[in-house]
Formats: sequence, C-alpha cells, structure tokens
Amino acid sequence: MPQLRQNLATKQWVVISTERARRPHSLSELQPCQPPDLPSYDPRCPFCAPEERPGEVEVLRLPENGPWQVRIVRNRYPALAPEGDLERHFSGVERWMTGLGYHEIVIEGPRHDLAPARADSDMLYLTLLAFQRRGLMLEQDRRMVYIQYFKNHGAAAGASLDHPHSQLIALPVVPGTRRQRAEEARRYCDERGGCVFCAMLADELRLQSRLVAVNESAAAFVLYAALSPFHIWVLPRRHLANFLEAEPEDIRAVAVCLHQVLWALDRGLNNPAYNYVLHSCPLHDCGREYLHWYITVVARISTMAGFEMGTGMYINPTLPEESAAFLAHILADYPS
Amino acid sequence: MPQLRQNLATKQWVVISTERARRPHSLSELQPCQPPDLPSYDPRCPFCAPEERPGEVEVLRLPENGPWQVRIVRNRYPALAPEGDLERHFSGVERWMTGLGYHEIVIEGPRHDLAPARADSDMLYLTLLAFQRRGLMLEQDRRMVYIQYFKNHGAAAGASLDHPHSQLIALPVVPGTRRQRAEEARRYCDERGGCVFCAMLADELRLQSRLVAVNESAAAFVLYAALSPFHIWVLPRRHLANFLEAEPEDIRAVAVCLHQVLWALDRGLNNPAYNYVLHSCPLHDCGREYLHWYITVVARISTMAGFEMGTGMYINPTLPEESAAFLAHILADYPS
Repeated sequence: MPQLRQNLATKQWVVISTERARRPHSLSELQPCQPPDLPSYDPRCPFCAPEERPGEVEVLRLPENGPWQVRIVRNRYPALAPEGDLERHFSGVERWMTGLGYHEIVIEGPRHDLAPARADSDMLYLTLLAFQRRGLMLEQDRRMVYIQYFKNHGAAAGASLDHPHSQLIALPVVPGTRRQRAEEARRYCDERGGCVFCAMLADELRLQSRLVAVNESAAAFVLYAALSPFHIWVLPRRHLANFLEAEPEDIRAVAVCLHQVLWALDRGLNNPAYNYVLHSCPLHDCGREYLHWYITVVARISTMAGFEMGTGMYINPTLPEESAAFLAHILADYPS
Repeated sequence: MPQLRQNLATKQWVVISTERARRPHSLSELQPCQPPDLPSYDPRCPFCAPEERPGEVEVLRLPENGPWQVRIVRNRYPALAPEGDLERHFSGVERWMTGLGYHEIVIEGPRHDLAPARADSDMLYLTLLAFQRRGLMLEQDRRMVYIQYFKNHGAAAGASLDHPHSQLIALPVVPGTRRQRAEEARRYCDERGGCVFCAMLADELRLQSRLVAVNESAAAFVLYAALSPFHIWVLPRRHLANFLEAEPEDIRAVAVCLHQVLWALDRGLNNPAYNYVLHSCPLHDCGREYLHWYITVVARISTMAGFEMGTGMYINPTLPEESAAFLAHILADYPS
C-alpha cells in the first residue's frame, strides 16, 4: 500500500511506493559513475597542476605551511562575478539584478583519482574547514547574503571534471527555497518551541530505524520522508544555526559521519554519482533559535521526471528504513 | 556580466550566466534521446498491444466509436492506488497518510515510433482532451484534491518506455509548491489586481523578444527568467484557472502552440529528452480570479547539480532571448 510521508521540517510530501520498484529497473544495474582506471595524475586536468598560477588563482593551505592538501580557486567559468555595483531593475515581467557574487572551487586534494569516499575522513574534514574559512572571508563582503556549499560527484550529479572538488557560491539574494525552509522552522519554534532539526534528530536517535552513522557530536540518517532511496541528512548534535561559527570538533564529527555515508554508498552502490550540499543560515540574519546547520547527501540513482517537476513532490520506490538497514549493514565493515 | 532574473509569477530567481556556456560542453554534442530506428510496432511493448485486456485496462476512444487514437490505462506500477480509506497519522518525525490516488497512462497513439513532435498537432490535441476527460472523472472522487498531468520523453526525462505516452496522477494533497505558486498569484491579485499570468502574457506579446509561437487563442514563450535554456510556457490567452472547464477551441489552440514548440525542439536539438507538465488550479478550490492553466515545457539538456538542489535556484548559461530566436528561426519552416 503506498504511503504519503511528510518531512517535519520542510513540510515536503513524498510518495513512498515500493510497487514502483517492480518496474524493470534495479540497483544492481547501476554503472559506476567514473571510469575505474583514473590516473593519480592527469596533465590535462586543471586541478592536477602542482602549483597555482599567480593572479589567476587564490590558494588556502590546510594546514598552513604544509604541502597543499586542499586548495580554493576561483571558478574559471563563474556563474557570478564580484565586480560592479548592485543594481536592481523592475519593469513588468523584466525583473533583474546584477549577478554579483563569488563562485569558487575547493580542490579536495592533489590526487586525481582519490575521491573522498575512498580517502580517510580527514579529506572531508579539511574540505569542510575550507568551506568555513572561505565563508568567513566572503561574509565580509556585505553585499553577499547567502552562501551555498556543495559537491557534485559524477556526471549524473552535474560534475564536469573527475578530479575531486567541491564548490561554493555566494549570492546577493536569499534563495526563495531557503526562505521557505527558514519560515517553516520559525513556525515550528513559535508553535512548539525549540529547533525542529534538533527534534527530528532526537526522534531518529531514539527510534534508530533510519540511523546510518552516529558519534558523540554528529549523526546521519535516511530521512523519514526521503525524496529518493538514498536521501540522507548529516547533522551536528549541538544546536547551532551558523556553520561559520561551528567548532572544529563538531566539524570533524560531521566529517566522520559524512565519510561513513559516502563510504557505504561507494561500496553498496558501486561508486554512484551523488551530491552533497551544506546548509547554514543566511549571512547576517541567523535564525539562531530555530535554524541548524546540516549536510544533505543524495545519491543520484533516479531521474527527476514530469511529476516531480510539476508538483515538487517525489516518488520514492524504496522504504527509507530499508535503505538505512542496507547502509548500516555495509558499515559493519567500516575500518575503525 | 551575469544577471539574476526573477520570474514575476513564481518569484524564483535564476542566474543567467553566458560565461558558463564557455565550459567544455555544447549543444551540438547532444545525442538524440531515442534510437532513431524504432519500429512502428514492437510486440514486446505493452502500449503497442492492439486491444486492451479486459479488467486490466480502462479505455477512452477519441473520437468515440472510431479506431483508437488515444487510450488511457491504469499504470501497472502505480505510485498511488485508489483503494482504502484516507488515514492520517502524526507522531513526532513520523507523519504519514494513506497513499490514495490514481496513476494513469495516456497512450498517445497506436504507433510505437510516432512521437508527438513528428505527428501533426491533432495528437497533442487528443492527448489534452484525454487529460480533461479523465480529470473530470477523477474529480468525482472527492478524496482527490489535485491532478498533475505530465509527459516524460526520453530516458533523461524519466521515461522508461519509448512508446509515446503521457501520464496523470491524482493526489489527496495539494503539493506545497503548487500552494506557494497559488499564494504568490493571490498576492499579486491583491496588490495589483488581476491575474499575474495574464499580465506576463500581455508583456510577452508586446515585447515579442521571447515569443516562440502565437495564434488567436494561445501563445508560447521562453520565460524571461528561464531556469534552463529551453524553459517554455504555453498559455491559453483567455483567462481561466481550471483546465477542466477549458473549451475545446482553446485546448486546440494550446495544442497547436505546444506542437510548434516540440517540433522546433525536435529539429533544433536533435530529438532531445523533454518534459511537459500541465498546471491547473487545485480541484474544488479554484482561485478563479488569480490562477491560469498553462503548460510548462523543459528540454532536459542540462543536469541539476548541488547548487540547484541546495538553493532551488538554477544557473542558465543561455540568454532566453537567444533561445527564443533560435526556435523562432526554426519555426520559419513549420508546415502551415
């Protein structure tokens, strides 16, 4: 019997319809999203270049003064650019503003072939630290009001280069979707008190049935109302709206859970394409009481079609509890 | 210089960044979404079956008593099912309701290989009439509050079968996204008076720069704030919220514009994958003043990635005015 489930925080409905899984598709048909024989160094890869080209690239080193592990460079084909004045224009249907912003790449390591799922969790820790470091700098540009941090792994997830990298885009507007999420969280806080994300996390830790990974300071679970079979949230257990204020130990704990999730997806689904996105509160406007920074992971094993496009609702052919059990089973072999 | 554009009706922002188009991707690399040598009849195809199997399939014939041109069948792998009582359950994070609903297929014609872009516009007219005919029946089930009509063409658009078909799903909830759209339209009506869709259509007819097709009763244009290079609305020119009340002549006019759009996409982009979705007001609750039925067409030539997933905003590497000119140029050869 199909079921409609609603996400407590976002209020999004999803159709959980295991009947749909009987269609002639199956997880075992999944092809890996990258050729398995990537070289460790590719001279044609712009991210493999051993040193930055001065004037063209900004660099951060973590740890400072060590050999580079994570570099941040400006995107050569940026969606937004920081130069110019913020203009707005509104005339009938034509409403625009200048595309001011920043679009940067986090090169996650020197090795062309070492994806974060196959490295140790330090690679993700350093990537998240780089997000935070760079976010704190971009926040100084007061024209910016929102930063989206994200990773695309594999062509089906929108990546155009194989070399492990993630991205951040700073925006002069708060995306409408994020305003709606914040508004729902504020409403929960007004009605019930407290943070809806903390409430969800507490429920998931109590129920256990959708938990994938947990440690003292972070947890990962398949969402009760997962929009697709592997739709996962990774949250710090400490309530905090603003990722830019997160303590290194919480970031490390989140990186460890995120690594477990990516490791299990890599093993269980044969290197699937995936995205992760890190959500924090808007800049300068924190919703301290009711927002909570977290990471969403989505394995891209299904295609958005007309129903999803039209309604914003999704059809998930897998029970979230079964997806969680699948990943937890794989994680029994996770190296300790 | 990149630009942020906002859709007047939906308030969605999009980044228009032609710089992004310089990345190593190009439209000319597009592969057709279907093998070019489909047979006109495929004995393995369930939609090619010359007659319905009694008890398993519902059939509509248009015109009645003629040979079948359009059939409506229940989806064998339905996302939702009509049997049972509507139960709701809310306990902490676990919020669900019974997945009551209808999931039906419109088989658009007997020929396995004849996609609507390559048939004449009657095929689309009959499909839209079938949507309306079936919508009027499903509306009688008072548990249903919303119907989404849609088509997926090609695997990249979520289709799992080649035989031309479209679908409709009746839901016991109004999707959150549709509620937000209706709320924006109501707000416009309160502030400015009238229908925001009529206002947009009037602007596009006056400006002409994004028009793709127009006739006495309908028009098609690339959106000013198109989320992707070929993101197109097809609207009846007569204000009407409820598709189920549309007159046959308006449906025919919309079908003609839709056909011109699909014909131009087929020629210009080499049979791309695409979706179209038909939006009408919620059932029994019409927003008569401020809603307007219409069809959205999206060619699936780009991949949603982490930025889009995180923010709900999109990055469009093509100027909508250039996309419209590209299609209008192709339509100079449209058979009259």
